Amino acid sequence: MSSNRVVVYKSPGEVAVESVDYPSLEVPQEVADHFGITKKAPHAAILKIVTTNICGSDQHMVRGRTTAPQGQTLGHEITGEVVEAGEDVLFVNEGDICSVPFNIACGRCRMCDEGKTGICLNVNPARAGAAYGYVDMGGWIGGQAEYVMIPYADFNLLKFPDRDQALEKILDLTMLSDIFPTGYHGAYTAGVTTGSTVYVAGAGPVGLAAAHAAQLLGAAVVMVGDMVPGRLTQAESFGCVGIDLSTEGELTDKIAEVVGEPEVDAAVDAVGFEARGHGSGAGEAPATVLNDCMTVARAGAGIGIPGLYVTGDPGAVDDAAKEGTLGVRLGLGWAKSHSFMTGQCPVKQYNRKLMNLILHDRAQIAKAVNATAIGLDDAPRGYQEFDDGAARKFVIDPHGMVAA
Amino acid sequence: MSSNRVVVYKSPGEVAVESVDYPSLEVPQEVADHFGITKKAPHAAILKIVTTNICGSDQHMVRGRTTAPQGQTLGHEITGEVVEAGEDVLFVNEGDICSVPFNIACGRCRMCDEGKTGICLNVNPARAGAAYGYVDMGGWIGGQAEYVMIPYADFNLLKFPDRDQALEKILDLTMLSDIFPTGYHGAYTAGVTTGSTVYVAGAGPVGLAAAHAAQLLGAAVVMVGDMVPGRLTQAESFGCVGIDLSTEGELTDKIAEVVGEPEVDAAVDAVGFEARGHGSGAGEAPATVLNDCMTVARAGAGIGIPGLYVTGDPGAVDDAAKEGTLGVRLGLGWAKSHSFMTGQCPVKQYNRKLMNLILHDRAQIAKAVNATAIGLDDAPRGYQEFDDGAARKFVIDPHGMVAA
Amino acid sequence: MSSNRVVVYKSPGEVAVESVDYPSLEVPQEVADHFGITKKAPHAAILKIVTTNICGSDQHMVRGRTTAPQGQTLGHEITGEVVEAGEDVLFVNEGDICSVPFNIACGRCRMCDEGKTGICLNVNPARAGAAYGYVDMGGWIGGQAEYVMIPYADFNLLKFPDRDQALEKILDLTMLSDIFPTGYHGAYTAGVTTGSTVYVAGAGPVGLAAAHAAQLLGAAVVMVGDMVPGRLTQAESFGCVGIDLSTEGELTDKIAEVVGEPEVDAAVDAVGFEARGHGSGAGEAPATVLNDCMTVARAGAGIGIPGLYVTGDPGAVDDAAKEGTLGVRLGLGWAKSHSFMTGQCPVKQYNRKLMNLILHDRAQIAKAVNATAIGLDDAPRGYQEFDDGAARKFVIDPHGMVAA
Amino acid sequence: MSSNRVVVYKSPGEVAVESVDYPSLEVPQEVADHFGITKKAPHAAILKIVTTNICGSDQHMVRGRTTAPQGQTLGHEITGEVVEAGEDVLFVNEGDICSVPFNIACGRCRMCDEGKTGICLNVNPARAGAAYGYVDMGGWIGGQAEYVMIPYADFNLLKFPDRDQALEKILDLTMLSDIFPTGYHGAYTAGVTTGSTVYVAGAGPVGLAAAHAAQLLGAAVVMVGDMVPGRLTQAESFGCVGIDLSTEGELTDKIAEVVGEPEVDAAVDAVGFEARGHGSGAGEAPATVLNDCMTVARAGAGIGIPGLYVTGDPGAVDDAAKEGTLGVRLGLGWAKSHSFMTGQCPVKQYNRKLMNLILHDRAQIAKAVNATAIGLDDAPRGYQEFDDGAARKFVIDPHGMVAA
Repeated sequence: MSSNRVVVYKSPGEVAVESVDYPSLEVPQEVADHFGITKKAPHAAILKIVTTNICGSDQHMVRGRTTAPQGQTLGHEITGEVVEAGEDVLFVNEGDICSVPFNIACGRCRMCDEGKTGICLNVNPARAGAAYGYVDMGGWIGGQAEYVMIPYADFNLLKFPDRDQALEKILDLTMLSDIFPTGYHGAYTAGVTTGSTVYVAGAGPVGLAAAHAAQLLGAAVVMVGDMVPGRLTQAESFGCVGIDLSTEGELTDKIAEVVGEPEVDAAVDAVGFEARGHGSGAGEAPATVLNDCMTVARAGAGIGIPGLYVTGDPGAVDDAAKEGTLGVRLGLGWAKSHSFMTGQCPVKQYNRKLMNLILHDRAQIAKAVNATAIGLDDAPRGYQEFDDGAARKFVIDPHGMVAA
Repeated sequence: MSSNRVVVYKSPGEVAVESVDYPSLEVPQEVADHFGITKKAPHAAILKIVTTNICGSDQHMVRGRTTAPQGQTLGHEITGEVVEAGEDVLFVNEGDICSVPFNIACGRCRMCDEGKTGICLNVNPARAGAAYGYVDMGGWIGGQAEYVMIPYADFNLLKFPDRDQALEKILDLTMLSDIFPTGYHGAYTAGVTTGSTVYVAGAGPVGLAAAHAAQLLGAAVVMVGDMVPGRLTQAESFGCVGIDLSTEGELTDKIAEVVGEPEVDAAVDAVGFEARGHGSGAGEAPATVLNDCMTVARAGAGIGIPGLYVTGDPGAVDDAAKEGTLGVRLGLGWAKSHSFMTGQCPVKQYNRKLMNLILHDRAQIAKAVNATAIGLDDAPRGYQEFDDGAARKFVIDPHGMVAA
Repeated sequence: MSSNRVVVYKSPGEVAVESVDYPSLEVPQEVADHFGITKKAPHAAILKIVTTNICGSDQHMVRGRTTAPQGQTLGHEITGEVVEAGEDVLFVNEGDICSVPFNIACGRCRMCDEGKTGICLNVNPARAGAAYGYVDMGGWIGGQAEYVMIPYADFNLLKFPDRDQALEKILDLTMLSDIFPTGYHGAYTAGVTTGSTVYVAGAGPVGLAAAHAAQLLGAAVVMVGDMVPGRLTQAESFGCVGIDLSTEGELTDKIAEVVGEPEVDAAVDAVGFEARGHGSGAGEAPATVLNDCMTVARAGAGIGIPGLYVTGDPGAVDDAAKEGTLGVRLGLGWAKSHSFMTGQCPVKQYNRKLMNLILHDRAQIAKAVNATAIGLDDAPRGYQEFDDGAARKFVIDPHGMVAA
Repeated sequence: MSSNRVVVYKSPGEVAVESVDYPSLEVPQEVADHFGITKKAPHAAILKIVTTNICGSDQHMVRGRTTAPQGQTLGHEITGEVVEAGEDVLFVNEGDICSVPFNIACGRCRMCDEGKTGICLNVNPARAGAAYGYVDMGGWIGGQAEYVMIPYADFNLLKFPDRDQALEKILDLTMLSDIFPTGYHGAYTAGVTTGSTVYVAGAGPVGLAAAHAAQLLGAAVVMVGDMVPGRLTQAESFGCVGIDLSTEGELTDKIAEVVGEPEVDAAVDAVGFEARGHGSGAGEAPATVLNDCMTVARAGAGIGIPGLYVTGDPGAVDDAAKEGTLGVRLGLGWAKSHSFMTGQCPVKQYNRKLMNLILHDRAQIAKAVNATAIGLDDAPRGYQEFDDGAARKFVIDPHGMVAA
């Protein structure tokens, strides 16, 4: 138990699995120093990782589109078994299998009081909000690993009620750490409700999760736009309508073909800052996806924006975009009285509800995103295939606990 | 009764009072044609105007910053006495003094059902939502006039319970047609509530109304930023803290001096698309104000945007801005999990509540915006002084009904 | 077209189909007098009835449990085709097939402004709120008939987008006038959301509609309690769990058998004032059902109460109950921080959303409630069978427009 | 520091100040046993009490209307200075002056996640929710004492930003532990908002706090009903209208005299289960106050019920009331579509907001409730005077820290 293996960022396009110290019940030094608290963390637990997924937002780092340093540990989509707990961990116990929200939160600050765990004030010296294994997110070790330390474990961990049931449904439950709640957050904040027509931009895992969440929220029709044929097929596999953005024609026309009018009740931007223009050969065009959402969203609609936008993007197409300033069609949005809902999903607001659906067989998120288990040493290949547009969600299984 | 005098736009910088036909109980021809309804309007009423205010958004037209044609009638902030009513006007009667929401709404469409009267689907062939006396807003005759026709009168009119009381408080009540609800909408959608610290950008009438509304919503501290000394003084006259944007120094520092931290719980953009940079000599800088709001708003905050942003601005500083595409610091907003609430205020959601406050002497909106009554023929002077930055809200009194 | 046939209440246990005058575009005299409006109603339309359902609340009258006079016309669940319209009916046209919310509302008062169409202030001299064919509800003629007059038609009618599609799905769409929205209201106000466990008391049509609505709102498990075996079977036919209240044992134990704990996240009282105790031979026990709901609802839960409670019940078991005062376990509810949501469902808040689901084949309400079409002359038999506990929802088809 | 003095219940009508052990960082044995957690509490802190108030709900115990045993320690309205903290208390420090919500909550369960700290699942073996010094509320030692132990201190304590400022405003800030949030909760859940007319039943401290909160929420008119002249005078001292319930006449008439109609937009029951009938000589009449609230609340209104209703009342007037079953006019409430909001106030949802108002001099709660400081040894006299109807809120000052 004296070592731990974890996926790390090496250079643009390259990740590797490396050995690091076995986790201890301590917060990062920078966190302790900044907040004037002890490094020792009686509130923390160590988890043996059952599953840990590769996320589209990891790709931003791996593509070199952030300031992540070489050696940055990766992984914030974590499900694990408690193997050690500090003395102030009272309500989860060794042997419990738990989902870990990707946002690290203290449960003791004003933001946590308000349920805004995505912007906890006590976990990141640089800004509000933190995550495991992510640049600028507080220095917490990533969880694409064998073991990981979880602070404020009673607050952060969602315990599955039954161990056997959990392992049986693990490919669904593993999505509770990030993309299922994140997709749900996008759909929910867009105002999707009973009878809504919905457009989701992007058929990557978050887009697919948003699309499935929209169904669960009662949408009448869910359309998903993308340029990758396999991803569109994946969206259609669970009852969505694929909108092929690689062909000629206006998006509004494509939508009108489906619902008889060129607009929808709610739109979700599940792409974010690395957006591309439409049609073959289109280059990167930041804000294109958001502007599309405004074009197709009905007057009065909400626009949920789970897709990530950043304050620093060294690889951006122009100087403004490098600091996160994008050409937004604000005049259009204002004329249509749109609401724009941004930011990291506060996972804890949704994960218990979605767990209940999974445990009662009322949500099929693993199928929706095409969950695919791989070993820890296969992580580099998973990153590569995902970056190439594979219509899969890769689930790393470091201890071989996922049933074949 | 065979004629009517109304303020019209003549050319950039010039308005005049001209005679037009006395209003009839008919909807504009373009509305009847587009929606396939009769021009005859048994639902309409004619009002003798008691008061009608000059609005900052009128100035956009008068400055030539829109496509308003010569002869465009003006005026959408209307309070009046019913002098004639169609046969399907059942619940207001001749002699009733009523406030008229500036948004024209049918009360019979899906948006009106949802309370979204700012984007009614049945009153404007060009888009959702309409207003009196405004370019692209449906062709309805303006109300800076002696008389005006109000469609769907039972739905649109807010009757004051007592005529004498209404005339006594008319300088407060006249603000119910637009700026008091609009300011309230900005503060409310920004999430202002008990104990909030608030920053309002812009100390024009809407900004001042937003500031007063923030107080009424329970704010602990309300700060108002502007570059015009008289407007700052006006803000301070009712308990706000003026933030002088014409001086050196960061906005965050100026806010920290007041509340001890460089951020606020809620921010309101009461300026809109004709924003200017800070400091002496700063030129027009679209989105500056909105970006300022993001800078000072706390993580998780809402940003209310009652300030107008448009889809076409022939006088804009660059091509993107001419079509309403502005450089928004979306990365910053996203990192802070901000929500952005845009669009015309749906006046009917708020005007009755605010009327109750006025009638019980619990709101002092006339004082807050420095209401100043003038005659109809003084309208051109009012427009000029307001454009010059007068810290006044001009209230046109076409029939001399406002007590001295 | 000079006559109309309508179902009327004759005496306890007896209804008949009788001829009355063909409807005119006029409001009831008592309404005109009380509100000081003209009897002539340019806002009204006459509908040829396509379908009109027998409702459990009709049974209260027919059983003699109200003060309904002999000759009271019946029927408030109406779907019809516009055959005549007043001159201020602008947005529906002859030939349109429309759903009629059972609550009559003006669309012009404060309550309608707030979406509270169940308590409109302008349609009933006796109190807030009105309905067709119901005692104390304003004197409006019932719609278990060939034709019916609908006031404020633009506001009240929900137009189906396509006539053929409407007739094809008419057994589902006919439920939009009352029980589908009413059941949805019960579930929604109880707080049913993604992942909820739900208990619905009563497997009559409203209970079944509440149960289906709970599924559509994302419930993980829906349990429905009743004492009639056929009704329980009906509930189980669409995925609910029947809870047999006729057998020995505590309700909490029966629930624990299903969900592993003796409580649920949300409870719906779909029975109302004619509640009975549990077990064989149990007599009428007002408030029993509501008290059961408190017993099984988790601390912090909402309790939706679409079941009808009345202010006057001449057949009640004791004097207090005769005036609607019931023995409520308020101490228990308070200790559990329950919220109690009562009153008529404001149909317009939900019917459009639910229509969208039906039109996209995402709701199967006709199957859920076992819709059964009968002719107008079969109405007396329908009343009788329904009162005997038939697990059916009777849909009267006065013109033979429902496909076999 | 080896002892502690605390107010205890001795017998009906009698309290005394007695010595008990100095608190330790441990949870009650029954809590540890029931939840399977360690008695040792690294999450706890010990506070030197600055102020601790006598509450109306303490009186229920002292009058013998509960099953509180002899020796029950009293006091749940606590403000104090941290003097010792467990090793997992990270964000408050020795010397911090803090408000303590009367509801004890873990910050780690589903209810706390949802902000429902009044029904925390981990602090009371008997039911959801706990409090200091109260029968059936978990066995936690009361805080009408010199010192008290606070579990989950980071979660439960609200730190005042500045010690000197805190002591200066201590008579206002002391109300944050219970009655100010509780009154606010009553007004807020009743739906009080901008422009509301409000009726508060009961001019005891909670009623007065509800009335002041209603003002802060933007009410146009606040009426407060009581039978004690001094309490009515107190209500009128800060701008409310007193409604004298001891005189002849209907409550609706008394309200109509003030607001011109016999109903209000929102009603608050600040009395609870020990309600009395109106008029001189009226006896105890459970549910009278709640039924009054229904009578005067407008259709569609909310009714906030901060007044306590209990499941066991040995001194009740009849058997039903002894178990908390009361004669509620459910038929009336249902006909008016009322919502009933019950339960303990979740203090943490409001205390920070209200603190901000106090610190910026925008709330005057000490004046509103007539805060009166007394020494610890004067507690028995305070109980007696309060029970006699003194229009005062007694604030115990055990260490002489409240400035004269």
